[in-house]
Amino acid sequence: MELETFPNPRPERPYTITHINPEFTSVCPKTGLPDFGTITVKYIPGATCIELKALKYYYLDFRNRGIFYEAVTNAILDDLVAACDPVEMTVTAEWKARGGIHSVIEATYRRP
Amino acid sequence: MELETFPNPRPERPYTITHINPEFTSVCPKTGLPDFGTITVKYIPGATCIELKALKYYYLDFRNRGIFYEAVTNAILDDLVAACDPVEMTVTAEWKARGGIHSVIEATYRRP
Amino acid sequence: MELETFPNPRPERPYTITHINPEFTSVCPKTGLPDFGTITVKYIPGATCIELKALKYYYLDFRNRGIFYEAVTNAILDDLVAACDPVEMTVTAEWKARGGIHSVIEATYRRP
Amino acid sequence: MELETFPNPRPERPYTITHINPEFTSVCPKTGLPDFGTITVKYIPGATCIELKALKYYYLDFRNRGIFYEAVTNAILDDLVAACDPVEMTVTAEWKARGGIHSVIEATYRRP
Amino acid sequence: MELETFPNPRPERPYTITHINPEFTSVCPKTGLPDFGTITVKYIPGATCIELKALKYYYLDFRNRGIFYEAVTNAILDDLVAACDPVEMTVTAEWKARGGIHSVIEATYRRP
Amino acid sequence: MELETFPNPRPERPYTITHINPEFTSVCPKTGLPDFGTITVKYIPGATCIELKALKYYYLDFRNRGIFYEAVTNAILDDLVAACDPVEMTVTAEWKARGGIHSVIEATYRRP
Amino acid sequence: MELETFPNPRPERPYTITHINPEFTSVCPKTGLPDFGTITVKYIPGATCIELKALKYYYLDFRNRGIFYEAVTNAILDDLVAACDPVEMTVTAEWKARGGIHSVIEATYRRP
Amino acid sequence: MELETFPNPRPERPYTITHINPEFTSVCPKTGLPDFGTITVKYIPGATCIELKALKYYYLDFRNRGIFYEAVTNAILDDLVAACDPVEMTVTAEWKARGGIHSVIEATYRRP
Amino acid sequence: MELETFPNPRPERPYTITHINPEFTSVCPKTGLPDFGTITVKYIPGATCIELKALKYYYLDFRNRGIFYEAVTNAILDDLVAACDPVEMTVTAEWKARGGIHSVIEATYRRP
Amino acid sequence: MELETFPNPRPERPYTITHINPEFTSVCPKTGLPDFGTITVKYIPGATCIELKALKYYYLDFRNRGIFYEAVTNAILDDLVAACDPVEMTVTAEWKARGGIHSVIEATYRRP
Repeated sequence: MELETFPNPRPERPYTITHINPEFTSVCPKTGLPDFGTITVKYIPGATCIELKALKYYYLDFRNRGIFYEAVTNAILDDLVAACDPVEMTVTAEWKARGGIHSVIEATYRRP
Repeated sequence: MELETFPNPRPERPYTITHINPEFTSVCPKTGLPDFGTITVKYIPGATCIELKALKYYYLDFRNRGIFYEAVTNAILDDLVAACDPVEMTVTAEWKARGGIHSVIEATYRRP
Repeated sequence: MELETFPNPRPERPYTITHINPEFTSVCPKTGLPDFGTITVKYIPGATCIELKALKYYYLDFRNRGIFYEAVTNAILDDLVAACDPVEMTVTAEWKARGGIHSVIEATYRRP
Repeated sequence: MELETFPNPRPERPYTITHINPEFTSVCPKTGLPDFGTITVKYIPGATCIELKALKYYYLDFRNRGIFYEAVTNAILDDLVAACDPVEMTVTAEWKARGGIHSVIEATYRRP
Repeated sequence: MELETFPNPRPERPYTITHINPEFTSVCPKTGLPDFGTITVKYIPGATCIELKALKYYYLDFRNRGIFYEAVTNAILDDLVAACDPVEMTVTAEWKARGGIHSVIEATYRRP
Repeated sequence: MELETFPNPRPERPYTITHINPEFTSVCPKTGLPDFGTITVKYIPGATCIELKALKYYYLDFRNRGIFYEAVTNAILDDLVAACDPVEMTVTAEWKARGGIHSVIEATYRRP
Repeated sequence: MELETFPNPRPERPYTITHINPEFTSVCPKTGLPDFGTITVKYIPGATCIELKALKYYYLDFRNRGIFYEAVTNAILDDLVAACDPVEMTVTAEWKARGGIHSVIEATYRRP
Repeated sequence: MELETFPNPRPERPYTITHINPEFTSVCPKTGLPDFGTITVKYIPGATCIELKALKYYYLDFRNRGIFYEAVTNAILDDLVAACDPVEMTVTAEWKARGGIHSVIEATYRRP
Repeated sequence: MELETFPNPRPERPYTITHINPEFTSVCPKTGLPDFGTITVKYIPGATCIELKALKYYYLDFRNRGIFYEAVTNAILDDLVAACDPVEMTVTAEWKARGGIHSVIEATYRRP
Repeated sequence: MELETFPNPRPERPYTITHINPEFTSVCPKTGLPDFGTITVKYIPGATCIELKALKYYYLDFRNRGIFYEAVTNAILDDLVAACDPVEMTVTAEWKARGGIHSVIEATYRRP
């Protein structure tokens, strides 16, 4: 699926955009049971910004996909970086407890 | 609309002023539906400070204006910087969730 | 799907059992978009109690089913009453905001 | 504006529906300044339920209307009762502070 | 000082109006030190409602008046009942701690 | 120690007075270790009210006294009832955890 | 194990005693995995009160015992009623989530 | 008014002292209406410390004085620096909302 | 007991993984009484990541082991570092109050 | 009174130990009235650690001692540093409000 973007209205000024999605869900490939979490994307846009509705539909694609905690975070970061070529981007995934243990995974990309 | 200012009572001492408005609303240009958010302005004043009542009326001008998240933040920063020429100013816009996703946009100006 | 039960260990004493599931999700039949909510079931057991793991799998059946807010709450109440014939049962569904509006639906069954 | 409704899926069972809108805004007829509040509608449906999207658009009609606190609450109760003929309905309006004072208005209708 | 009122827009329907003022201050007659508290007025209006701005100015009259906790609550109740002849009214005063002890005084009037 | 009182300024109207003291401490007679708790006194005054400063000094008397949880609550209730002859009074003692267990004791007096 | 008690210091006055233990743990007989919960005991004592340290050691007996949610609550209520013959007693067990679902079990005894 | 001080008990060790006053009030010179806020003073003492009771009376002097937000913060910082000659001091004033906007002013002094 | 690991899906990108376990319990070697705490492990993985279910069973091994606060934290850090050879790892243990005092122990390993 | 210590189980690894005591009380030398506060000690141990029970009894020594805010913090820091010779230690004392003002005192020792 393609992640729609739009031109950054102020590319000459570095500023940060944060999108917080507390309604993310995917499926554990081992147990087949759903995982629930909050995905936060924070970035300094380059030439383009991620369109909010497109981001929402992008997240929906994970609803019935089997994927591990560590892989989800890195996959989202890779896809969003590929879509909008940001100056810098951090993806944080905070998961509801499984077996009594909460997990948080955080990965950062910085334009070389 | 002109943003009234008053002389900084202690221009020789750098200090910070923060104005938090949790009652900001504008209109989404795509859907025509209202957006609600909190606008925080934090700055080190130069020769003048922004008058509080004038700031309130300035915000009211957005009530029925169609404007995107990223544009609002940058527009407010531009207008306030133009009005009071601060040493430094940060504008943060925290939006109520749309489609389940909360967004935060933050931009900073530093006097060259 | 059948909802497994087990014999009430103290049927001669009326007492209450509450199960709170903050990870419920179904699909809006109109938009095809997912809904997220917390389902709370509170009941005075009759001869049998609902098995917790079976309840969890029962909820999973709604994950990709299109069903309206009002219908979900009544359907869960009907299914659980049929499964365990309780003295009394209340189902409460608290939904995350859609279009800025949170909804709560609550229905009660009392054994005639 | 007409408030769309849909048939109550379980008219034979009394149950409650609550819709909480923390993004309500209208205008003070005295000062011309906006008021912000949370409108909560809680009702036992009769033959019909209020459609959620229609309710949202109904609230939008107040955005630029000048109307006092006490009148808003009673007007919403009257309109919703007329639209769906509920068994019972309570409307609560909780307003953000004006001049340092928060106000809450609550009115109830019971079918005679 | 006179407490302005306005005609109840729906005198035929009993409903409740609540005004919460977290910025009340008076003076302790014993020590001369200021007391700070939150005054909540909740009432079912009769033929008239209390005007909000008038209420605010009424509270300001206490700013430099020496008066005890128990007397303030009863005085406010008496004055407001005299001003608007409500069906029922409760005044609650919650005071910030003095000597480590928080106090709450609550008095109710019911029209005979 | 004598608990000073003052005449109830509105004896003809029943109203409630609550004094919350989160800084109460006494000593466990078994271990000699201090106990810490919050004492709340709520009463409808009769002819007299308890003077707040006197109440504070009354509580200080427990600082180095060895007394059990259940006894403290009943002793305070007895002393305050004897001092001011209230229409009704409830004393609640909420204790910080000891051995991981929090305790709350609540006793009520009603004038016969 | 015997649950030590001590004579009620004020048997002629009905009052309530509450003991809250947020550090309860037992073992699920099905999975062998530990369960964690908060046990709250609230009672009106008869001739005797439960000794707090004895209660703590009583709870420790469950640490490695395999027992279901519904059984624990009823067992604690039975044991404590047998130990101190209260006028009335309620035991509430609030369990940490298992498989994403929180459970609460509450049972009450009233002296016939 | 003079601000009493006492000798720093450990002048050879730099440490910080913070005094938080959530009960500050002054008057807006424009409207004549009271302002309410929390004043926080944090400092590294030099040879002397500010006496707490004197600080309290110092704050009382503002109760009926007309003074703007920005001026209050700077005036308090100037007065306290003059009184105790600290190594470093920060004064923060957080104001209750006026016209829906909260303001925070913060100024710092560092001994040259 | 062996701590299972799995290959890091993105070893070329440094990112952090955090696992929070609020259901940890061990035994005090001095008193024989249980301790309860939250163990947080935060690390930058090297070639392998710790398997979540294995971590859960590893924690269960402490349930009936007598071990002091300071030793637990260091032991967990040593075991996890040995199991997965991380780039960096911090273990934080936050303990419920004992004798009214809460303790937190935090130790960090950095790959030489 | 002597503050018992025990050998640091991992002296070769720098790590932090924090002990939070929300049940500290001493006496104001001026008024004779009790002060209540939370004392937090955070340190990197050297060759020895402070024994937790000994720390508790050390705090009890202040219960009836008249001592000023600033002196308590520095005295505790001096005593604990003398007892265990830490690499670094910070003592923070947060006091309940007196005369409406909360105070926090924080002092740090670093081994030369």
